[in-house]
Order: sequence, then structure tokens, then C-alpha cells
Amino acid sequence: MTHTSVASATAVSAYAAPAPKAPLERITIPRRELGAHDILIEIKYAGICHSDIHTVRAEWGDDGNFPIVPGHEISGVVAEVGAEVSRYAVGDRVGVGCLVDSCRECENCRAGLEQYCTGELGMVGTYNATGRDGEPTYGGYSTHLVVDENYALRIPDGIPLDAAAPLLCAGITLYSPLAHWKAGPGKKVAIVGLGGLGHMGVKIAHAMGAEVTVLSQSLRKKDDGLRLGADHYYATSDPATFEALAGTFDLIINTVSADLDLGAYLGMLRTDGTLVQVGAPENPLSLSAFALLVGRKSIAGSAIGGIPETQRMLDFCGEHGLAADIEVIGAEQINEAYERVLASDVRYRFVIDAATI
Amino acid sequence: MTHTSVASATAVSAYAAPAPKAPLERITIPRRELGAHDILIEIKYAGICHSDIHTVRAEWGDDGNFPIVPGHEISGVVAEVGAEVSRYAVGDRVGVGCLVDSCRECENCRAGLEQYCTGELGMVGTYNATGRDGEPTYGGYSTHLVVDENYALRIPDGIPLDAAAPLLCAGITLYSPLAHWKAGPGKKVAIVGLGGLGHMGVKIAHAMGAEVTVLSQSLRKKDDGLRLGADHYYATSDPATFEALAGTFDLIINTVSADLDLGAYLGMLRTDGTLVQVGAPENPLSLSAFALLVGRKSIAGSAIGGIPETQRMLDFCGEHGLAADIEVIGAEQINEAYERVLASDVRYRFVIDAATI
Repeated sequence: MTHTSVASATAVSAYAAPAPKAPLERITIPRRELGAHDILIEIKYAGICHSDIHTVRAEWGDDGNFPIVPGHEISGVVAEVGAEVSRYAVGDRVGVGCLVDSCRECENCRAGLEQYCTGELGMVGTYNATGRDGEPTYGGYSTHLVVDENYALRIPDGIPLDAAAPLLCAGITLYSPLAHWKAGPGKKVAIVGLGGLGHMGVKIAHAMGAEVTVLSQSLRKKDDGLRLGADHYYATSDPATFEALAGTFDLIINTVSADLDLGAYLGMLRTDGTLVQVGAPENPLSLSAFALLVGRKSIAGSAIGGIPETQRMLDFCGEHGLAADIEVIGAEQINEAYERVLASDVRYRFVIDAATI
Repeated sequence: MTHTSVASATAVSAYAAPAPKAPLERITIPRRELGAHDILIEIKYAGICHSDIHTVRAEWGDDGNFPIVPGHEISGVVAEVGAEVSRYAVGDRVGVGCLVDSCRECENCRAGLEQYCTGELGMVGTYNATGRDGEPTYGGYSTHLVVDENYALRIPDGIPLDAAAPLLCAGITLYSPLAHWKAGPGKKVAIVGLGGLGHMGVKIAHAMGAEVTVLSQSLRKKDDGLRLGADHYYATSDPATFEALAGTFDLIINTVSADLDLGAYLGMLRTDGTLVQVGAPENPLSLSAFALLVGRKSIAGSAIGGIPETQRMLDFCGEHGLAADIEVIGAEQINEAYERVLASDVRYRFVIDAATI
């Protein structure tokens, strides 16, 4: 840690992309003074999510508000609490995910679907967004974070803080659709792609009791997939896969951002099956309507999860002994780690040790 | 009628397209001898569905087995019954829709979803298909039809046979998704397109108790739409419509085959809303994954309905006094009617008087 106290100070150390596509470098950023409902988190770990890379490369049709401090898979310990904080105490193990605020008044916020906030504020992203105070938000590649207690999550004791960090995005991104579309005993679930998201999908779907199949480009990670909890593992580079699995799945969750032949994947759904996109490819999705019509099939999207559901996910992972498979790195390795993420060379999530920031 | 009895004869009069895009003309076609479970229907009316036109113009990537006798919106009276027929008697008012057979053994057939039959036979279409006997099937633009009693429907007494015919395709095509996605009190439903399908959607959704909005290209048919049961009517040629209705609907049913800006329509769905395609445009659907991700939205497809549900639809229409708004024509007007359908110049379904065939 470069700062021993930020209680009165507001400047903390962070890693930021200064401009689109520029390498990340250490900078100093402001953190707001502790409000009555805020907690100060001493960040311990921050996961590297593919979204971080999309954002700092300005690949999502968004110019970005640089410098950008990425990081929305954050775990740490409460270092200080505001005057009216009731849910957390100093020393508590907490996490912060993709959102740090929302309007709290719209129908979705009231329903615990803050990620779909339709209020004027909208969902306030943990980074590259504008907070309630009009200031830019900075993410978890940093030593400290100030956040409203209502947007922090409790990390169960059984989960190590390093392996817990990726649950805040990768974990909830898969848990939410698996829960919503009722993965469980008697259900056949396919996870497309065995990366950071996919490996959590396999673990969670297996723990929910579903029969899990991994659909990966090759069989390279087959041993891993089976160890993580998959019952079956198929290579999508082999056209025979699509024939063998025709009409098989109740639910397919697509975690890959590459352009897929969606019609071929829909062919592997049973009647009334659903294919859920949890990522957004750069190009539009394209498919024949017939692929949906025959068998009353659906394509849906799902984005992370709301605050109550994220807590349920963490509790579920605590009960089932689930966490991410990680590789802990120092902050000086972030740029190299980005290259390895793009090359799918990580099993299965990089986590930055915040002590090196 | 050109034939006073077909009990022993098997040749009946029909209107057929002799080749792709050729005008329809009168021909003679074979009808099979009555099997033990078959009924002979004296056809009274046959609706003209847009699918008929797609098929005889070979626009669906299917070469077609010409000559094709279209017609899958069929109403009539039972003229003769096979030795083991138990459900119908001579004189009963019956209908036949888009399918005349299926394997009867697969999971979908057992569940009453014969339209999604996954057996070797598959769903046997009422025309342009191959029946269990290996012979081509011919549709309802004809004087008589022989069909297994299990694939015929009972038409409630309160529904005139001419206005009943379009229920067998247009009616069930809209009823099925409205029922499956639970249109009813408290639900906001939009029907895209006020044609043959759409006008039935408005009537049925209104009768189910939903709040119904028509989304039509212009306000030309607004008075009709409100008379049919719509609560609201908007022109999609006006960009303000998409702003005014952002986040409004639980369910949008798209009946038009033209290429829509699906992202704009998805923007009118509430969180967890579904857009259902009941028709298949020639071009692939194209949309940004973000339009699905934000608000956990779905695009689904739905094709007609199974036999039990088609009977439920007819009974529902009987109870609520619903039927199609029709224009009855003679067989010699079929080709002209096709042109008028393509020009959207019909309110709302042409029905052929089979006595003129």
C-alpha cells in the first residue's frame, strides 16, 4: 500500500489506461470523502475481466472517459464506515461488482434488478461512469474504494478473497441466467466457451444439479472442464458435435464474444429451449427466424445480476465451496495479462494483488 | 361441387399452382380412400394465408413439389367417417389447419406439440408435404379432404364456417404465443402489423384481458384497430413512437415479414419482456446483443400450435364470439386476391367459397 490512511486524504494509487489502447500505468486518483452511508474498502484483489479490455480499447462504441481505472471484480476488507452505516463493520470481508449506485426508486431497483435501473441515474458502473456526485467513477485496480454500503456485498468466510474477486462479475454473470432459467436437476445445460465466465458457469450449473456440457472450440481444456464439473465436453470445431447434440439442451449460455453460427447452436436446443447471451460481440447477432420458430426457441440476454441476487450467488458459492480458478499477478503484469486474456491463455482468471498497486 | 360423391372415387377438384410463380388454375387431384380412422370432409371454405403465396412462389428456400394445392385454413362438414372413427359423425362442423399428421410418438407429439414433431415423419403439412402413405399432400383449395380424425378440429356452433376458416392458421398462430407468454389482465401486449394474423391477435389478446397496442406502419387502419379491440394504435413510421413507448410492453408479437429494426422494437419491451416472431422474413434477423442484455429481454419464435391447443383456441373463440373479419371470394378470384394480399389490400382475410371450386 502506498497510503497508510485515506480517512482524511482522498488521493489513492491506481492503475489506469490514460487513453484508448494505451498501456495501463500507475496514477493517483481521488476517492470521495466518506459519506454517512459509505464504507471505505481496503482493496485486496481485483479480477481482470474481458470487459476491462474492451473498455480501455474503446471497442464498445463508447469513447470512454479517460483516464480509465478498470476493475469490477473487487474483494477487500472494510477499513472505515460512515456515520449511518448499519450493514458493515470495520474488518468485514466485502466485495464490489459492476455497479456502485442506481436510482433506487424505479421498478427495477425496487425489484433488486439494479443492473437494469431505468431511473435518471441509471446503473452507475464501477468505472468509466459518472456517479451521483457528478464525478467519474474509478474501478478496482486501486488500493481503496469508497462505496455506498448498499452496493457492497458480504463475502462468506469460506471463500478466499483472491478467488472470491472474480465472483463479483464472472460468477454473477453466469449464476443469474442459470437461476433465472432454472438450471437444476433434470435440466441439460450447455456452457459455450471455457474461459473466465464459462469456468464459473460449469461450476455453478453443476452445483445447481444440472447436467452440464461444455461446448468449446477444441478439446484442449477437456480435462479441466470435466474436473470443474462438466459431464460432457464437445468441440464446436467438429461439425459432428452439432448433429450429435441436436435437440439436446434446455439452456445454452454463450459466454464467447466471437461471432457464432447461432442457427447451429439453436439446433442443439430442445423445444422451448433458450440460448442466453451474456456477452456482446462487436458485430450484430444474425440468425434465421426459422431457427426460433421450429421448437418455440428463444434467444435472450442477461447482464450480471442485481445486488440481492449477487449476495445469493456469493452465499451459494460459500455453501458449495465454489470460487474462481485464478492466477494472482502483480500490478506491473497487467498489460501482459491483457495480452494473455486476448490469447485465451489464462486458467481461468487473472487477479491483481492490490498490495502491488 | 363438381363431385357429388367421392366415397368410392378419389379424384376431386382443386386449385393449384402448376409451377413456381405460375397463376393458380383448376386441376383434379387424388384424395386417398377413407381409412379406418379417416374422415371425409366436404370443404366449405378455405382461407388464403400469406404462407400460401410464399410457398407457391418458392420463396422459402424450398423448391416445392408442384403442382401445389395451397390452403391450410379449412372449414367444412364431415361427409363420411371411417370404420373406427370415434370423435366425429357425419354432419359435424370441422376444421383442418396446417398439419394433417405427425409421428404421434415423440415427446412433442405426446405433449400435444405436434407442430414440433421430432419423429421421423415430422409434422406433415397440409400441403406441399409427403404423407404417411408416401403421397404428396394437397391443401384446402379443394372440394374435399380426407384426414385422420385426430388431426381435425371441432368448430363451435357459434362461429360461422366462413369466418372460422382463418382461425385454423391465423387464429392459432396468435393464440398460441399469447397463451404461452401469458397475455392477460395487467399485461401490455403489442401486435406488430394489422393484417390477417395481426387482426386476430388484437381480438384474442383483448379477449384474454390484456392491454393491447397495435404497432402499424401508418395510422391508416387505426379505426379498425380500435374497433377490433386495441386500446392504443401507433404508427411505426413515426420515430416518436419508439420514444413514447420505450420500456412499455411485456410482450410484442411480430406478424410482419418485412425486415424490422429489431433493436428499436426491443427498446419498447420492459425488463424480462419477449418479442415473438410468428412469421419468417426472407432475410436473417439482425440485432445487437446489447438490445437483449439490457433488461434481460428475449426474442422467440412460435409456429402455429398443436392439435389440443388449436381446439382450445376454437373453444375460446366460440366462448368470446371471435372469428376472422373476412372477404369471401370465388375460386376464379384467387390470383387477384394474391396480388391484393401482397399489397396489404384485404380486411382482413380472403376466404374461398369451396362451392366455386
